[in-house]
Amino acid sequence: MTESIPNTAPASFVPPRRVLMGPGPSDVHPRVHAAMARPTIGHLDPAFVAMMEETKDLLRYAFQTANTLTIPVSGPGSAGMEVCFVNLIEPGDTVIVCRNGVFGGRMKEVVERCGGVAVMVDDAWGTAVDTGKVADALKAHPGAKALAFVHAETSTGVQSDAETLCRLAREAGCLTIVDTVTSLAGTPVLVDQWGADAVYAGTQKCLSCAPGLSPVTFSDRALDAIKNRSSRVQSWFMDLNLVMGYWGGDGARAYHHTAPVNALYGLHEALVMLREEGLEAAWARHRTNYMALRAGLEAMGLELLVDEPHRLPQLNAVRIPEGVDEAAVRRRLLSDYDLEIGAGLGDLAGKVWRIGLMGHSSSATHVILCLTALEGTLRDLGVPIRAGAAAAAQKVLF
Amino acid sequence: MTESIPNTAPASFVPPRRVLMGPGPSDVHPRVHAAMARPTIGHLDPAFVAMMEETKDLLRYAFQTANTLTIPVSGPGSAGMEVCFVNLIEPGDTVIVCRNGVFGGRMKEVVERCGGVAVMVDDAWGTAVDTGKVADALKAHPGAKALAFVHAETSTGVQSDAETLCRLAREAGCLTIVDTVTSLAGTPVLVDQWGADAVYAGTQKCLSCAPGLSPVTFSDRALDAIKNRSSRVQSWFMDLNLVMGYWGGDGARAYHHTAPVNALYGLHEALVMLREEGLEAAWARHRTNYMALRAGLEAMGLELLVDEPHRLPQLNAVRIPEGVDEAAVRRRLLSDYDLEIGAGLGDLAGKVWRIGLMGHSSSATHVILCLTALEGTLRDLGVPIRAGAAAAAQKVLF
Repeated sequence: MTESIPNTAPASFVPPRRVLMGPGPSDVHPRVHAAMARPTIGHLDPAFVAMMEETKDLLRYAFQTANTLTIPVSGPGSAGMEVCFVNLIEPGDTVIVCRNGVFGGRMKEVVERCGGVAVMVDDAWGTAVDTGKVADALKAHPGAKALAFVHAETSTGVQSDAETLCRLAREAGCLTIVDTVTSLAGTPVLVDQWGADAVYAGTQKCLSCAPGLSPVTFSDRALDAIKNRSSRVQSWFMDLNLVMGYWGGDGARAYHHTAPVNALYGLHEALVMLREEGLEAAWARHRTNYMALRAGLEAMGLELLVDEPHRLPQLNAVRIPEGVDEAAVRRRLLSDYDLEIGAGLGDLAGKVWRIGLMGHSSSATHVILCLTALEGTLRDLGVPIRAGAAAAAQKVLF
Repeated sequence: MTESIPNTAPASFVPPRRVLMGPGPSDVHPRVHAAMARPTIGHLDPAFVAMMEETKDLLRYAFQTANTLTIPVSGPGSAGMEVCFVNLIEPGDTVIVCRNGVFGGRMKEVVERCGGVAVMVDDAWGTAVDTGKVADALKAHPGAKALAFVHAETSTGVQSDAETLCRLAREAGCLTIVDTVTSLAGTPVLVDQWGADAVYAGTQKCLSCAPGLSPVTFSDRALDAIKNRSSRVQSWFMDLNLVMGYWGGDGARAYHHTAPVNALYGLHEALVMLREEGLEAAWARHRTNYMALRAGLEAMGLELLVDEPHRLPQLNAVRIPEGVDEAAVRRRLLSDYDLEIGAGLGDLAGKVWRIGLMGHSSSATHVILCLTALEGTLRDLGVPIRAGAAAAAQKVLF
């Protein structure tokens, strides 16, 4: 019909084999890929419904919660974020939003599109959310409906103190909305211990599943707020009052939308693998590999953006040395080593690389490959760095 | 932590092998499953971006359009529906909504949640949209922003006259929003010939891909309406002004959300297969297998709900004979034959079965299996039906 329409069928797409060490997706385990390739069955099939129940239980384990409403949203992490906000926030509601990176800024966007008023608590990119400022903001806005913050900022590699932030909000009679996209299964996410109310995550980070789903969990307090809204949820697709009819715990399964069957097979398998390893072991693994990466980066003379106490072991923002063409380095890593690392985002574009050690990309071999590739590439490009990165990492690892 | 949390990891989920002849998902071809299991790569990887461009071209072929903005939404068909409405409809806009089944009713819900006013044109379930009534409604509401209708009603098996409806709307200066979830690749969807403005579909029907994505296409007229909105799109996730930054045609790829990489591999493969077969051949196949199914059903003495000229070949609503426990029949088909057919939805619950002949479930073997299984099951349950269903179908097929 038009020039842009191919006259003959193109070939099947066979992706290159990459090593994924950016900010997500991370390397997906072959078991998860195999699960996604199993025969599609109906989204109301009794066998599928049984798997849904198991998935909910496994997500409760991952989130460390007993919350009834713990499900995967049929969309990526940004859809999960929006599910939390559109269900809890009504027009005119005040939301205190902490912004110390890209994703806090996105929360503001979403709050405003719900008709809410976002009160911003800003901290510099690369630093944690200042709990003192949040306490002040809660005092200054006693009627705020919710406090929203990012536990693990994917754009900077910073972890904030979720437990304290949730406690402050609870004491102020305020709900919490928490982004754990990059933290879930990488560092402790303790939903019940924190007393968090609405928490969302992604599948393509430390769960090492393909992107496309967003695990969410809601406290009973959040559930009450959703059930007692005075206005309808602005999104039909995201309205949990309807979604619960399909994912609900009472065995009845009312059709809402057609669930992404094969993607859910993959998530189930990734969660089974997490359960086999155990959360504590997964956290420890992420920690160890981070320490090895850090040792190697320091040996080269490279610096991390974030102060040690707030660093995410799974997402490392590395300062780009003066005068280096950072995009050229990433292109070389991709073409020579099939290795993907991430660019800086927003305010940090051109200033940092983001090296992910998430899920199955958090392994000794990933660390060694990344350090060796980075060292070789920088040396080839004439960047004055010191040698010995891999050896420094090996000392930590073995 | 709680009783509901498993103490040990459950086994991997191995689904039963089903034959999917309900209203979707349809049987997914092993080539598509294999594609979904290929190694995950980054959503900004140059190789992935090239595949995205090919997918857009293939979707243009499927929709028979030259529309620049032709992409898969990262969510199921209901998300695709909502993408169309939230981007085009602003608070106070009037939308004429045709309702002759479940999905027209859902459109009304979505319009109202956008702050729009839905003017309903109702037709009986099982009949087509009455173009005369639509013409009257367009005259009665000269300022209407859009006409919304379902081309192929999955809840009833009815096809409406999209070409006439689009023409009427265009003559009235009105945009069109068209649901082709069940029609795309099964019966002609001719977006440019119709002059339709916003069209959405699903992957799990006649494309025979796993559920989870929603192809959409927008005319330049629709694009202008989106660009010239006076209010912001209420959904950040669904805002095409932002989504276009990632899927846009100019080569630049701004991060918006993480695309569902492996699901998109699957869609690409399903579209390659459609291109190999050719649209006309796919339409003819759906037609032939429908005629065979019809011959078999009539031989048994079973009746179809919809009058012949408006029947969808890919979705057949079969009247349930007096006194038959329809759920028991479906349970027996599933347990004895691993065969899934659909129940009635909404007003038609308990009144019809829905037999899908969609995508790779539209084959001679599917028709023969379904007729034989249904005949045997009804006979076993003591329902007075005539024999010879399979033979009647074979006469049509071979």
